[in-house]
Amino acid sequence: MSIYDLIVIGGGPAGVTAAIYAARYKLNVLLISKEIGGQILESYHIENWPGTSLISGIELADKFKEHLHYLKVPIKEVGVDGLKKISRGFIVGTSEEEKLETKSLILALGTERRKLIVPGEKEFSGKGVTYCAVCDAPFFKDKTVCVVGGGDSAASSAVLAAEHARQVYMLIIEDKMIADPSWIDQINQRKNIKIMYNSSIKEIKGSVMVESVILEDNTEIKTDGIFIEIGSTPATSLAKEIDVEIDDKGYIVVDQRQETNVEKVYAAGDITTASNKFRQIATAVGEGAIAANSAYVDLKK
Amino acid sequence: MSIYDLIVIGGGPAGVTAAIYAARYKLNVLLISKEIGGQILESYHIENWPGTSLISGIELADKFKEHLHYLKVPIKEVGVDGLKKISRGFIVGTSEEEKLETKSLILALGTERRKLIVPGEKEFSGKGVTYCAVCDAPFFKDKTVCVVGGGDSAASSAVLAAEHARQVYMLIIEDKMIADPSWIDQINQRKNIKIMYNSSIKEIKGSVMVESVILEDNTEIKTDGIFIEIGSTPATSLAKEIDVEIDDKGYIVVDQRQETNVEKVYAAGDITTASNKFRQIATAVGEGAIAANSAYVDLKK
Repeated sequence: MSIYDLIVIGGGPAGVTAAIYAARYKLNVLLISKEIGGQILESYHIENWPGTSLISGIELADKFKEHLHYLKVPIKEVGVDGLKKISRGFIVGTSEEEKLETKSLILALGTERRKLIVPGEKEFSGKGVTYCAVCDAPFFKDKTVCVVGGGDSAASSAVLAAEHARQVYMLIIEDKMIADPSWIDQINQRKNIKIMYNSSIKEIKGSVMVESVILEDNTEIKTDGIFIEIGSTPATSLAKEIDVEIDDKGYIVVDQRQETNVEKVYAAGDITTASNKFRQIATAVGEGAIAANSAYVDLKK
Repeated sequence: MSIYDLIVIGGGPAGVTAAIYAARYKLNVLLISKEIGGQILESYHIENWPGTSLISGIELADKFKEHLHYLKVPIKEVGVDGLKKISRGFIVGTSEEEKLETKSLILALGTERRKLIVPGEKEFSGKGVTYCAVCDAPFFKDKTVCVVGGGDSAASSAVLAAEHARQVYMLIIEDKMIADPSWIDQINQRKNIKIMYNSSIKEIKGSVMVESVILEDNTEIKTDGIFIEIGSTPATSLAKEIDVEIDDKGYIVVDQRQETNVEKVYAAGDITTASNKFRQIATAVGEGAIAANSAYVDLKK
């Protein structure tokens, strides 16, 4: 069995960048991911990837894939079932029942945005339903938008949405907002934000794109967009198997070098506490590059 | 006089990304830079910008420029002569003798790589002469390369160059290396690295591309590449005018939010202490995005 220098788990922007850097360092690297692209595959349009004015998520993922092929990075498009620490490194168990040995690991499994789990949500994902207001608000110029959630990210999303949209509805399940007072102030200053407490969505309707939401009390609100900002869940079950430290919100704690508390285990992208927790493609690639550099330096020691 | 929300100074990857994010936050933003691209303009080939297998520095800079135009970011292609703190923000003085007022600032002026200042160096820059081994080593597969310098970055560059090149000469001005012992070990293990102490370059020769270097003692070494790794100087003279904190190496100290010690002054890219000091396009764009996000959040407070 060949021993890898580095296995990168996760094929979003962080994992892809880590693999690109590792290949150019001539490490014996393997990238494991069911698919290349990660969360960008869910993005209809991307307008904040520097140097690319406008691109679809699928196209950008294809460009990442091309880059990996160009550098001849080996990729296994499988799942990872288990991780084990051994004296000289780690064993990665795949969904194809392979056992792979590696000297170091980069965990770049990202997060999953919390879903409403209502009819129409999946169908209209990327067709009006979005989970990243920072990414998508500018696409809703002069339109109507519903922001779902009552925390900081929902509140800041509503303010940003109001800069672009004509009308913003903020739909909050509870009877109060739990966001930072400065965001609540901002919301109160905007005439085009209407807060609706005790409002939960029962169904999302539309034809090609989103057209309306139906609330539990059967109110129908005509809308062009639905920004779901109810949190995200980092994919850290594998990290826990090798005792990687997780913070109280569930994210992997990394230092400046993107290293975790476990020697030769690094993490990059949305799954970590780095980049001021501003989870973007631009920050994920930075973390991926740093993680690969740290792995390279440590392997050469 | 109109008051800007944010002025970004510097048009490399960090400054461009900060401006892209700020524009999408609908801030009244201005980007000031003599040219767009920064240090990437000096790169002949770029192979580690994720999603773009291979591109010239000039082409990538053009793509950044296009993106700024697409988002209608106002750009002033002038120099900045002075910065002043006033009670409600900052005054930016340009080389065109304009005085511009802004509520917040992002400093993204980058660094200048230290040069040898010998005949041929400028002429062959990007034609064999390079200042970033991590970026360019893979382009010298099976070739001969001279690495100039005796510190950590020169030593790690020699090790990386030796993974790709057939023969590496390490040219050190002094009679010893001052690098980390683990890098010196690595160098000693490579049969294809030859260390030459007391060696300084007098001239770089070639026709279209670099062909050789002439040392002070008139030794001529045939070589395809020259990696100059003798440090860099961050462009912090403006930062000092408003008392921004600088570390002992001359870089701007920033926190997790990319904010400096001066309120509403942020910094991003090679000029900062962030990203584990791993200065790459991939890390610069991450820092630019975080800085713009922090400025936006602080301006809305």
